[in-house]
Amino acid sequence: MSTKVLRIAVYTLLVVGVLMFVTQVVFAAEDGGHATEGVHSIASTLLWIVVILISAKLASLIEKAGQPAVLGELVIGLILGNLVLLGISLFEPIKADPIIAFLSEFGVIILLFQVGLESNIKEMMKVGPRSLAVAIIGVVVPFLLGWLVVGPWLLPGLPTNAYLFLGAALTATSVGITARVFKDLGKLNIPEAKIVLGAAVIDDVLGLIILAVVSALVTLGAVSLGGVSVILGKAIVFLVGAVVIGQYASPLLCNMFSRIHTGVGMKMTIALGFALVFSYLAEQIGLAPIVGAFAAGLVLDPVHFRFFRKPQVANEIFEEADKLPEPHKKKLHHIADHLSDKHVEELIEPIALLLVPIFFVYTGMTVRLETLFDPKILLVALGVSVIAVAGKYVSGLAAGNVNKHLVGFGMVPRGEVGLIFATIGRSLGVVSEEVFSVIVIMVIITTLFTPPILSMLLKRN
Amino acid sequence: MSTKVLRIAVYTLLVVGVLMFVTQVVFAAEDGGHATEGVHSIASTLLWIVVILISAKLASLIEKAGQPAVLGELVIGLILGNLVLLGISLFEPIKADPIIAFLSEFGVIILLFQVGLESNIKEMMKVGPRSLAVAIIGVVVPFLLGWLVVGPWLLPGLPTNAYLFLGAALTATSVGITARVFKDLGKLNIPEAKIVLGAAVIDDVLGLIILAVVSALVTLGAVSLGGVSVILGKAIVFLVGAVVIGQYASPLLCNMFSRIHTGVGMKMTIALGFALVFSYLAEQIGLAPIVGAFAAGLVLDPVHFRFFRKPQVANEIFEEADKLPEPHKKKLHHIADHLSDKHVEELIEPIALLLVPIFFVYTGMTVRLETLFDPKILLVALGVSVIAVAGKYVSGLAAGNVNKHLVGFGMVPRGEVGLIFATIGRSLGVVSEEVFSVIVIMVIITTLFTPPILSMLLKRN
Repeated sequence: MSTKVLRIAVYTLLVVGVLMFVTQVVFAAEDGGHATEGVHSIASTLLWIVVILISAKLASLIEKAGQPAVLGELVIGLILGNLVLLGISLFEPIKADPIIAFLSEFGVIILLFQVGLESNIKEMMKVGPRSLAVAIIGVVVPFLLGWLVVGPWLLPGLPTNAYLFLGAALTATSVGITARVFKDLGKLNIPEAKIVLGAAVIDDVLGLIILAVVSALVTLGAVSLGGVSVILGKAIVFLVGAVVIGQYASPLLCNMFSRIHTGVGMKMTIALGFALVFSYLAEQIGLAPIVGAFAAGLVLDPVHFRFFRKPQVANEIFEEADKLPEPHKKKLHHIADHLSDKHVEELIEPIALLLVPIFFVYTGMTVRLETLFDPKILLVALGVSVIAVAGKYVSGLAAGNVNKHLVGFGMVPRGEVGLIFATIGRSLGVVSEEVFSVIVIMVIITTLFTPPILSMLLKRN
Repeated sequence: MSTKVLRIAVYTLLVVGVLMFVTQVVFAAEDGGHATEGVHSIASTLLWIVVILISAKLASLIEKAGQPAVLGELVIGLILGNLVLLGISLFEPIKADPIIAFLSEFGVIILLFQVGLESNIKEMMKVGPRSLAVAIIGVVVPFLLGWLVVGPWLLPGLPTNAYLFLGAALTATSVGITARVFKDLGKLNIPEAKIVLGAAVIDDVLGLIILAVVSALVTLGAVSLGGVSVILGKAIVFLVGAVVIGQYASPLLCNMFSRIHTGVGMKMTIALGFALVFSYLAEQIGLAPIVGAFAAGLVLDPVHFRFFRKPQVANEIFEEADKLPEPHKKKLHHIADHLSDKHVEELIEPIALLLVPIFFVYTGMTVRLETLFDPKILLVALGVSVIAVAGKYVSGLAAGNVNKHLVGFGMVPRGEVGLIFATIGRSLGVVSEEVFSVIVIMVIITTLFTPPILSMLLKRN
């Protein structure tokens, strides 16, 4: 076992070394070379994509230690993004590249769309009440703890508004991390996964309202009930509209477009069209685009694509199967049917393979490790993180007759949503640099430590 | 037949109308809505991707009239990009979106990578000498005609340097259009396709040299043989290196990476890694990135991926096949083997479905139809275009015992390469606005009229 670990470590060092050497050489060549004038050079972005994808795959060695690949991607991103602290600024341009940032956001949209496609709307509805209970507890408890307990206790002497924002930042749930862990381990269909996914969507709505309320309190000193109702109303109209209208519209649209073309390109266009339009609309409402992408995946059912051409290999199998006696005929028909049904998911998969690792490595890269260097802030942040974990963990108790630990820890990662709250608070002048660093560290801790814990719980389950 | 055409027309109008309406409504909503502060809004780019993909698929109706889909994509792009002439500026932001521009370039890289994967390096070598002959004639004849005949004759009174650049702009070959037509019609494996692909790669090297020579003549008044040799040397080292070293390195790298992980994600990473690194290196040398992508596709052979896990469905088929007697067993093994072998191409296909239409629609959008409005320039441009077509067409005569018309017309489209020459000439002050417009119209004509002609010739073949 220890030789295996050693071999993995040597391999990793070797390949990271080669990677760094190649990038160095190539960039030296770039300084000396001359790209054709007049052409916008996209070359460096192409290279960054390769660097990210290869790093992600090297990091997937972590799977041999029983950890989900997503943890490896986050950690390798963390390393690449913080090499600058050791004076290596080679990878700094990645963080500043707007195209990488776009591809990363596109990646998490595709991930949640995939998760939606693999989920079933009826199954989601079944766990709906439990998701709602988990979401409400998972928002109310951390908010109250942050605002009334941990803020005044660990960060005494700040204005109440700062505690309000700290509480708000503790309410967020970043569904991307949890969904990816469940997906990495092939557990998207267990009830715990469905409860967490549903609760994360509801959390996004609740978070939107909390953000509106605390922002209004800070800027206006009062909350307008009308304003909050409008936000809540829009979010509910979007979600209910997406699910209800989407369920009726998707077969109609699939049918209509199949009259123009029944090829694989049209299938892809409809699937991506749903994902991107729903993401767009969600963002317009103020929700996270990934909530829209998840809803799009939920309403698109593979059966809607029955008017489209089957993949050619499925037809070949059918043809051969029909010459055979039972049970071989039935078995081969089953394989070919499965191949046709899963075709939309198979089509999205390669796009996810390209874009999803960009999201997680890039997320890791944007973590600024230097925030951990101030011992006083670090200590406070550890305290806040304990509350952040505990506050979400108790929400699992409302999940009913399932593995409550799994649901509770599934709600823990804060990801980018917590950072958005902190950023807004800082822009309003309420969140000081000190509180901001505390929130950043809390986000790092809840995001990085959840995947191994979830993975352990899932294996024990 | 005429009712069919009518129905297609009505459908198209209907769907374009709906599309425009939806975009209008959505954009009105955008003005009124409020995106969450602090998050970089990627929403409009997501929507543009959907608009481009749906437009491309609507334009694929042109296939029902026997035309290749790429023509539809170019034409719908032309329409969307020039609606501003009718006062509709709805789609103008697409042209200015740097992320769409990046995705478009990424798209043509993926297209040429696919074409390379479908091509076989040994087969390419077989037609090598004929490709070389076609390329040389296809560069020398249009260059001499442009410089010495059509320039002085149709555009009298300009300095010789302007004629030199006009000639240079006539030498370019845009392989993207031709490759796509052959691909759309499933004819990438006929000898004519291979000759044209090979000639286009050589053309890119020759074009690089011509550009260096005419630029040196204009700026220095003389050509340094040393400078030209360096450019030629670099290009040859890259191409020979890519093909020779790539052929040996690709199985080694595939083997090495398969030790880290044998999953589909690693397969994808290696394939994309080759495509993007080769594109990057080609651009550093001064060649078109697509030349690198094509070379990457050529050296990557599906057999190198034999150490990787087979797709699960292939294993299911093998398992069932092994229970059956011959010839069923053999037939099913054949299907499953094919599924495993083609797996890399299948993985790249969805990425191409997403990105390739963006390239062609975007290319169409960047065409500025108002250049056609000046009758004098239009007439001169028509004359230049006739020479542009004739000059490339004669190169087909060197193609040996194949359909010479097909090779000749395959070399005709100038695409973006001709525009790059014109742009550089204009930036050097040699190419006037008038000559620039003439070149732009020549590029439009050779690019738009080639697909239907090639498609007609291919069907007659």
